[in-house]
Amino acid sequence: MKYALAIEYDGRAFCGWQVQPDQPTVQAALEEALARMAGHPVRVHAAGRTDTGVHATGQIAHFDTEAVRPLTAWVRGVNRFLPPGVAVLRAMPVPDDFHARFSACARHYRYLLLNHPVRPALMAGRIGWMHQPLALEPLHAAAALLLGRHDFSSFRAAECQAKTPVKTLHRLEIQRQGHLLVFDFAADAFLHHMVRNMMGALLHVAKGNCPPEWIAALLAARDRALAPPTFMPDGLYLAGVSYPAHFGLDSEPAARHALI
Amino acid sequence: MKYALAIEYDGRAFCGWQVQPDQPTVQAALEEALARMAGHPVRVHAAGRTDTGVHATGQIAHFDTEAVRPLTAWVRGVNRFLPPGVAVLRAMPVPDDFHARFSACARHYRYLLLNHPVRPALMAGRIGWMHQPLALEPLHAAAALLLGRHDFSSFRAAECQAKTPVKTLHRLEIQRQGHLLVFDFAADAFLHHMVRNMMGALLHVAKGNCPPEWIAALLAARDRALAPPTFMPDGLYLAGVSYPAHFGLDSEPAARHALI
Repeated sequence: MKYALAIEYDGRAFCGWQVQPDQPTVQAALEEALARMAGHPVRVHAAGRTDTGVHATGQIAHFDTEAVRPLTAWVRGVNRFLPPGVAVLRAMPVPDDFHARFSACARHYRYLLLNHPVRPALMAGRIGWMHQPLALEPLHAAAALLLGRHDFSSFRAAECQAKTPVKTLHRLEIQRQGHLLVFDFAADAFLHHMVRNMMGALLHVAKGNCPPEWIAALLAARDRALAPPTFMPDGLYLAGVSYPAHFGLDSEPAARHALI
Repeated sequence: MKYALAIEYDGRAFCGWQVQPDQPTVQAALEEALARMAGHPVRVHAAGRTDTGVHATGQIAHFDTEAVRPLTAWVRGVNRFLPPGVAVLRAMPVPDDFHARFSACARHYRYLLLNHPVRPALMAGRIGWMHQPLALEPLHAAAALLLGRHDFSSFRAAECQAKTPVKTLHRLEIQRQGHLLVFDFAADAFLHHMVRNMMGALLHVAKGNCPPEWIAALLAARDRALAPPTFMPDGLYLAGVSYPAHFGLDSEPAARHALI
């Protein structure tokens, strides 16, 4: 049987998703817990291999097992074996040809930014921070220039392993709620550090350092060296993953609560 | 000069507010940071001495100093000396007769509860959790019975040092936002563990263990031994403190963002 899992985690508790020797990672914690439940070694594959410090409210992963267990075993049972910073939210049987990463047609990321003179304390590590006042109008104008199918090389980390830098950004919405700015991104796929690099460039515009049109020039240049530094991971959440309808998975991200 | 400070902190990072030998406390962290800025020892007095694991978005404390510094020194300057889990949000000069604890006319607490089959991961330690389905109508009925001036002995911890168990509960509002329940409490003052003990009793009703009227009988009995256990501190936030208008402080709690 093949199962898909929806997973929530606190990125600060792990050195990213992917298994690394002698480091706590989400994948390692999950594989260990699933193996205890299944009674055999388990390999999990995630839709998005998040970096250290990046959180998830709707990561999707799949695994194969010969063990026959009720669905609750893969949720409540597995959660008993997981450390506090990670939990399985749902388990769903999926067809054999499903692959959490290769079947995905869209990834949804959310960035939470505190725009306030004082650094976050209660939300330290869970929210990005910018103390300078940010202007929303140029931010919206710059965001509009990033939408669509582009070569995103200017926002690509040197170590990115994607086959092509051409991706389609379906959505980039920014709303202000008091001192909080919420950035919602959706794309077919994201390059390594793409969201954090876009955040760096967008905030450059929002601080008034450059006009919104500079984003179009930066995109056209396809040169990472021209773009501002990668912004902090603290406020970044993998909010959900969409799959073609025939797999029968929810296609929209659905957080458990409005807090994050 | 006397100053009032508005303070935010993550209760998990400290063993409560009050100074204790060899334990990290919010008071100790603040007194050390203020002393470094003032150049002399500083004693701070808080409106509410929160327990281990209880958070604050709007704790108010005051201190006296002979040092002459611009207001930003008591905010940004002091924040440089504070650990990541605590930050001063505002500093305000106050009259000599102001006392953060004794001048307060109301305290505002918020309890965040996740009502979902799966334990919190991302918000572990920041949100209470109840996996059983909770009914909102009996909860509202029970809450109404707690409002007003009462002897709250049934909700008072044994170690409580308050002079009288008679307090006035001005507000107890409960709203559901998806899987999140938000409880807003306001009273002239709270007994030790009073909010967490009321939470325990309210959830007893919401789970269907007792009818709402049981809360009135529990209150009338003035006997802590009859009430359910103290509920977990994880979701509890000191959200704000109100003072008489002549002190010139904001009387309403104002969180920096809608997240908490």
